Amino acid sequence: MDRTSFETHPGRYKHWRLTTAGDIATLVMAVDDEHPHRPGYELKLNSYDLSVDIELADAIQRVRFEHPEVKCLVITAELDRVFCSGANIYMLGQSTHSFKVNFCKFTNETRLYLEDASANSGLASLAACKGTTAGGGYELALACDETMLVDDGSSAVSFPETPLLAVLPGTGGLTRLVDKRKVRRDRADVFCTTAEGIKGKRAKDWGLVDHLVSRSKWDETVAERAKALAGKQQVARGPAFALAALEPKITADKIAYRYVELAIDSAARTGALLVRGPESVEDPDKLAGAGTEPWALRAFRELDDALLRLRFDCPDIGMVTVRTAGSQANVRGCDEALAASASGFAREVRLLQRRVLKRYDNTARSFYAVADREDACFAGVLLELALGADRFYMLIDGDEKIGVATSVANSGFMTTATGMSRLDARFYAEPGRAQRVLARGSEGLIPSEEAEQLGIATIAADDIDFEDELRIAIEERASLSPDALTGMEASLRCVGPETLETKIFGRLSAWQNWIFTRANSTGQHGALTLYGQPERPQFQWKRT
Amino acid sequence: MDRTSFETHPGRYKHWRLTTAGDIATLVMAVDDEHPHRPGYELKLNSYDLSVDIELADAIQRVRFEHPEVKCLVITAELDRVFCSGANIYMLGQSTHSFKVNFCKFTNETRLYLEDASANSGLASLAACKGTTAGGGYELALACDETMLVDDGSSAVSFPETPLLAVLPGTGGLTRLVDKRKVRRDRADVFCTTAEGIKGKRAKDWGLVDHLVSRSKWDETVAERAKALAGKQQVARGPAFALAALEPKITADKIAYRYVELAIDSAARTGALLVRGPESVEDPDKLAGAGTEPWALRAFRELDDALLRLRFDCPDIGMVTVRTAGSQANVRGCDEALAASASGFAREVRLLQRRVLKRYDNTARSFYAVADREDACFAGVLLELALGADRFYMLIDGDEKIGVATSVANSGFMTTATGMSRLDARFYAEPGRAQRVLARGSEGLIPSEEAEQLGIATIAADDIDFEDELRIAIEERASLSPDALTGMEASLRCVGPETLETKIFGRLSAWQNWIFTRANSTGQHGALTLYGQPERPQFQWKRT
Repeated sequence: MDRTSFETHPGRYKHWRLTTAGDIATLVMAVDDEHPHRPGYELKLNSYDLSVDIELADAIQRVRFEHPEVKCLVITAELDRVFCSGANIYMLGQSTHSFKVNFCKFTNETRLYLEDASANSGLASLAACKGTTAGGGYELALACDETMLVDDGSSAVSFPETPLLAVLPGTGGLTRLVDKRKVRRDRADVFCTTAEGIKGKRAKDWGLVDHLVSRSKWDETVAERAKALAGKQQVARGPAFALAALEPKITADKIAYRYVELAIDSAARTGALLVRGPESVEDPDKLAGAGTEPWALRAFRELDDALLRLRFDCPDIGMVTVRTAGSQANVRGCDEALAASASGFAREVRLLQRRVLKRYDNTARSFYAVADREDACFAGVLLELALGADRFYMLIDGDEKIGVATSVANSGFMTTATGMSRLDARFYAEPGRAQRVLARGSEGLIPSEEAEQLGIATIAADDIDFEDELRIAIEERASLSPDALTGMEASLRCVGPETLETKIFGRLSAWQNWIFTRANSTGQHGALTLYGQPERPQFQWKRT
Repeated sequence: MDRTSFETHPGRYKHWRLTTAGDIATLVMAVDDEHPHRPGYELKLNSYDLSVDIELADAIQRVRFEHPEVKCLVITAELDRVFCSGANIYMLGQSTHSFKVNFCKFTNETRLYLEDASANSGLASLAACKGTTAGGGYELALACDETMLVDDGSSAVSFPETPLLAVLPGTGGLTRLVDKRKVRRDRADVFCTTAEGIKGKRAKDWGLVDHLVSRSKWDETVAERAKALAGKQQVARGPAFALAALEPKITADKIAYRYVELAIDSAARTGALLVRGPESVEDPDKLAGAGTEPWALRAFRELDDALLRLRFDCPDIGMVTVRTAGSQANVRGCDEALAASASGFAREVRLLQRRVLKRYDNTARSFYAVADREDACFAGVLLELALGADRFYMLIDGDEKIGVATSVANSGFMTTATGMSRLDARFYAEPGRAQRVLARGSEGLIPSEEAEQLGIATIAADDIDFEDELRIAIEERASLSPDALTGMEASLRCVGPETLETKIFGRLSAWQNWIFTRANSTGQHGALTLYGQPERPQFQWKRT
């Protein structure tokens, strides 16, 4: 197993500096050219790669948990004339298709977590762009609540991807431009095909940026706007909780955390994910106050890390079983305590669980949830793993010890990207059905056979058939084309209304995936391939 | 110019038979193996290709216009054990990427027009599937109001695309399965990976079909259900109007219809579309009653045909200017008369205009609308061509003769696929703005400079700058990668809420485009390439 570490710490950042002062945090992008994620390119002009974005994701999460006093995050840059020039083009040119797609997915998820902080967690953000703001740099700015551009006669915001590289802005830029900032579509068209971008008054008039500020008034105005944004926040986080390192044990075929395990069978091209429940019913605030990380946080941070490693380090593993183990009563107890708490910390944990479950929905692997042991623990927030899986196999045992249980965690908070809960999405055809399942769940364990009748299990079978049926289903799935499955799952998993979020992962990413495979971008004579070289790209002109 | 004819007539159908009896029409699929669209494959087992689908589109449109007494269309097949086995796989295997994508787009548009007939035009549809209903055959059934499957122990509905061909059901199948029929997503997953499909009681229980009927009761039940569906219709069409052939004049670089012209400059890879307004203010009902086709219908049928020819026959033409010519007063008068008419015929014409304008939105070409002559006629329904274009260039003339005008056609009926009007989508950021533009438009011509200020024109320039600016913009656009432009335009044109329709063209088609380019489907060892041959496909296993 190749090993990408998604763990870092502000003390180890190479590319960002995080400082806080009162209710304002400042995150300064100061990319170190010489520390790319992989050798082979330099991160010039504050361009970014996976390493840079892992630090950004870490910084956002740390401010959310460790700096609850912060109400506004200012994202800015150290370079004087460049805010950020976007994803590093040489890195993209050298990367495999699978890496490119997963890189874009990860950076998208990070920006959505930044928007979530503002929407739900009392943490606004201000992009203070005192220089060139290009491509992914502008996409980062679009994810902030407000964007300030320096008015110096030269600094512009731009999306040079289409005119220069024959690809799309891949980190939600097109969607945020017209659907979040609501820039007029014909102006967006001009903007997205103008490589040098748009600056000054026009950038403000077209709604591309919120504030246009001279160099002389820059620092003062940034401070003012940050203060104003901080002052508007109504939601309180905290108390602070320091996130300890996860430090999984990694062997050739397994990653083992405290609660989560991911085992890989390379020959079969399958994986096995196991999530263990809590040892007891925990009071999250009490534990956190004593410096101990509650299960509700720890287990989901581990799951988050395992999913990222699965995506980046195990591209050949297309089919993953998902099992749970532990006491259903403990999970339900933890869910109830977490939901009952009025603390900002508890809310932050719930929001993290929701984010991680969306990462699971958005992982391009076939997931079959499996309940085939007496300690199977698909209860409450862990039941979401079964509801989010492509299928759910349950063994019918004579004693009816195997079953599922619901909790407050299933009743609406853990929304998917569409804004619906997984139960509501499952019973999209029958609006009242989710409530009936929750009512039945509140009475206690729902054994496998009943779970199938209620529509929770896809397939329930007794021990004469179960093992063979599951084995064949896994083998069949692992034999199908991974591309077709990715497209199929992306369609079937997004039942219901589309949102800015599903547009980014559905429409925009699907187009980008296609464009990344086209000769015009990544072929021998493609624009992405030839970027920075004297040779001009040669295009195939057929439109589709 | 290669010449695909999209015109046909029931008297010339090779693959369908259309009959009517009272308020029921029956469309029998009886595909003639030996008349494929192009040589190289046989259309066995009621499989279809572009020729078959052109006839289907013609049949639906003719029933809508020529048989207003028909309230239910029964779609069935002549073969005893096969309803339809879907798009012909050998045809797909032999087709270029560009053809495959445009074929899927056309078949999708036809099925949406069938759904539109039911939603807006008092014409329900019943898929009477007395045998195997596979792939595109089942997708056609999904587009009908009700689906009836024969219960004979063997006939199944199926989506074998993913397991057998490593592609997706490309004609809206995945979307309609979970978002229209609201089949549970885990069951949809099982269904879409089970090549042999699902039959009998399970097909009904899972919501894949509406009715399960034995062979002995088949004819009787089909008649009953068709009668019941017909009886539910509240909207009256008519009077009948026979659609005459368009018979454009086609030369090497031009297609010329009565009102529409499409000229091609192959060297520059650009096209020029011209739509002329009506010669007078027409009363559509009076004209139609006298057997004369009103401009409102004729011009949009011509535009429809021109757009299809542009898509299929001019793949290298990526950049198209759109001009209009004529009397704005006449267009506005025709719009008002059409909107004021209470006849079913007038409604049908309005629905056709709406459909054709969506075809325009959904055409993967860059469109620049241009108003640079005194007779420019971007008024009313023709103004929609400017609002739907990627950009709108207007010349500022000293006399202020060049301008735009609004009519009732801009006030909401001509919705895009998102359900919003083009004006509302344009001013998505300012909800009241569309109404203000309509109010201003009701006072008379809006000259270029004012049109720019109001946000209708993208760029207005006087004659010192105009010609150069437009020329450079066209050359630049024509120099960009067609793939990136297609993805960019598909994102920017779909401002606002997503619908089943935008999901089909956005999410689903984008994934399908990608999958069609992957080696696992169309490579040398891909499943689509090797279909029907003894050799097994070899897959690249990397997931994205």
